Amino acid sequence: MTHHSSNLIADMEQRYRAAFINSLGGFKSVVLVGTVDLQGATNLAIFNSLFHIGANPPFCGLVFRPDTVERHTLSNIISTGVYTINHLNERIYKKAHQTSARYPKDQSEFEATGLTPEFSEGFQAPFVAESRVRFAVEMREKIPLGINGTILMIGQITDVWLPEEIVQPDGFVDLEQAGTLTCSGLDSYHRTQRLARLAYAKPDTWPECR
Amino acid sequence: MTHHSSNLIADMEQRYRAAFINSLGGFKSVVLVGTVDLQGATNLAIFNSLFHIGANPPFCGLVFRPDTVERHTLSNIISTGVYTINHLNERIYKKAHQTSARYPKDQSEFEATGLTPEFSEGFQAPFVAESRVRFAVEMREKIPLGINGTILMIGQITDVWLPEEIVQPDGFVDLEQAGTLTCSGLDSYHRTQRLARLAYAKPDTWPECR
Repeated sequence: MTHHSSNLIADMEQRYRAAFINSLGGFKSVVLVGTVDLQGATNLAIFNSLFHIGANPPFCGLVFRPDTVERHTLSNIISTGVYTINHLNERIYKKAHQTSARYPKDQSEFEATGLTPEFSEGFQAPFVAESRVRFAVEMREKIPLGINGTILMIGQITDVWLPEEIVQPDGFVDLEQAGTLTCSGLDSYHRTQRLARLAYAKPDTWPECR
Repeated sequence: MTHHSSNLIADMEQRYRAAFINSLGGFKSVVLVGTVDLQGATNLAIFNSLFHIGANPPFCGLVFRPDTVERHTLSNIISTGVYTINHLNERIYKKAHQTSARYPKDQSEFEATGLTPEFSEGFQAPFVAESRVRFAVEMREKIPLGINGTILMIGQITDVWLPEEIVQPDGFVDLEQAGTLTCSGLDSYHRTQRLARLAYAKPDTWPECR
């Protein structure tokens, strides 16, 4: 094991440090966020900062760095109050990654990458038709993190679309069966291979596979 | 594709909904958080809510539900200001899962599960000796999320230990090579298989593998 001290980390070249620190968080959720501006122009952006906040009501969080291409997504969410979250799969991950390029505001990442916008009646933001697990989110709270200027967006999951056969009898959604991918660092994409689902842990028993 | 409306989600049985909603976030980081109380008693707890907040300075976030076994971890962090984050691998994931059992405050999850505490000079919180990627964190900010009573803890990564051979020339850490696992839902553990690392995206080119 090699020790990297805080001084060593502070002295790292900026891009090297970004790659290094972004890796430490482990394998992460990677999703496409679909939005629309007040004129109806669509936008699509890849995020690896989605996290679970609560199940009842169903809340999720996303972290925004306002100085990047994500700013179109953020301003669209603030304008319209809604967004979609779409899981990646093997057929679309390269197109998904490409949405992180700095396209001008008037060019939709759907058009630029060849992903297909799909709309649900009564909901403004576009879904990604090629995504097999996707859901609609309504903005609930925007929390600026004073510590470094990032913004935490909390949203409520309203409507969910997924293939019925991947929902298990206990509510667990088998994302591996859906082909959902995970990512690490800033640019590494991975499929998964299940080891086990483990039973609810109790002090007096040892974890069993479900 | 099946549609689950917000009414359908609100009407789900509580545990079913917890499993369902926890799955939607995609594959997640899963780590062991090591802490110590003011008397020096060690505590270890599994978390799947770690997320990246910034690389310079290096900040990470963790979400706490204060009504669960996580409360020992939270109170220890508040008391001592420090914690460790330790990646899971195939050899320890069952023991890691078992730390989520409701052990009494006076029983260390290290002892209960057979994981080995390891200390670094000058740092109070215990690392997991069996973890191949681990780092020390200092508490920076505790943000109560009024929307549902969860707590967001922001910490600064200070010292990192990992096998030197998994650090790539550009700073990327090859977690797959380290055997780091990912999880989905509340109880499903997965190894990964890399598809590709993709080059930094630019509007006028198509993503290349690195």
